[in-house]
Amino acid sequence: MTQRRGPYAKSAMRRDAILDAALKVFATNGYWNGSLEEIATEVGVTKPALRYYFPSKEELFTGVLERWDTLAFVVSPLDVSDPVEALRGLVRLTERNLSIPGVIALHTMTSIEATNPAHPAHEFYIRRYEFFRERITEILEGCERLGLLAPGVVPARAARSLGAVMDGLQIQWLTDSESVDLVGDVAHHIEGLLVPAAGWTE
Amino acid sequence: MTQRRGPYAKSAMRRDAILDAALKVFATNGYWNGSLEEIATEVGVTKPALRYYFPSKEELFTGVLERWDTLAFVVSPLDVSDPVEALRGLVRLTERNLSIPGVIALHTMTSIEATNPAHPAHEFYIRRYEFFRERITEILEGCERLGLLAPGVVPARAARSLGAVMDGLQIQWLTDSESVDLVGDVAHHIEGLLVPAAGWTE
Repeated sequence: MTQRRGPYAKSAMRRDAILDAALKVFATNGYWNGSLEEIATEVGVTKPALRYYFPSKEELFTGVLERWDTLAFVVSPLDVSDPVEALRGLVRLTERNLSIPGVIALHTMTSIEATNPAHPAHEFYIRRYEFFRERITEILEGCERLGLLAPGVVPARAARSLGAVMDGLQIQWLTDSESVDLVGDVAHHIEGLLVPAAGWTE
Repeated sequence: MTQRRGPYAKSAMRRDAILDAALKVFATNGYWNGSLEEIATEVGVTKPALRYYFPSKEELFTGVLERWDTLAFVVSPLDVSDPVEALRGLVRLTERNLSIPGVIALHTMTSIEATNPAHPAHEFYIRRYEFFRERITEILEGCERLGLLAPGVVPARAARSLGAVMDGLQIQWLTDSESVDLVGDVAHHIEGLLVPAAGWTE
């Protein structure tokens, strides 16, 4: 006997299918060129049906970004109370990203488009960088209090650079996947921020 | 008496004016959406006149990228024989970049579009990253031979991360110019790769 699904489960599945299709189309064409027609065709629904779930292109797009940020937070909770473990979470996140190049392409492409203040995701990215910088700063300050930060490392500066390293390496990896060791390079960068006693490497 | 200009000088000026206009249009709209009509209008020439200087959109675009790479090389020659000075050149380059946000926006936007193998600048970026990684690796190996590299730093990994930090910080800066200290953060990152005896800070 197959499991029965109520209308809510069916609706949630349809919503997820739309978000998957939207991810694919936006990651390939960017926000401005990603068309709702193409997304509707991809998922096999009409454009009015698409609008029932997501009234505007902007809401659909933000839905895609937020869905993946929520999942990222599960892999890497950035828990300030255990700072070295929080840094390990960033390496796990990078490892996970290897398996979803489409999502990374979308995020990277959008983060560039969104440098334009007219882009609907402009505020989203300002807040996203801000959130990441603040959390990582707190995490590095946590390491400092435990005596685990390498001498000379300034938490706020290192926090900005750590996000930048992850973004920049992902661009090199998207361009030529053989050219970087994405996970190893991120891990090596973090290792350089800590003293050997932090027990970063086995 | 005003200086007389021969036809060659006039032609070179016109060529530069076209490259300036192309930079502006491509940096705003990206490669795919940057139109030759818009560039011709911007510089005040006809489309056939534009084609006289640059027979294809691809050649015009590559012309813009190469022109700025040549200028970057003047500011930061990446001279392996004086490795600490070569690293200082990267800070000067970053300082220079603050004054040309349009060029940085173009490079960043293009580097993302060009992750797509069908993009005309795809090979250009693969070679560019490769060149940068190899040169910086040699520079860091040079520091290592002089005993100036911080313990544990692996030149090849650190070279990939250094390029990534510069790219990633520029994205944060383009999104919100107040959010990062572009030059200071790059300098701090490089300082972390060196021993204090390298005399990086004054």
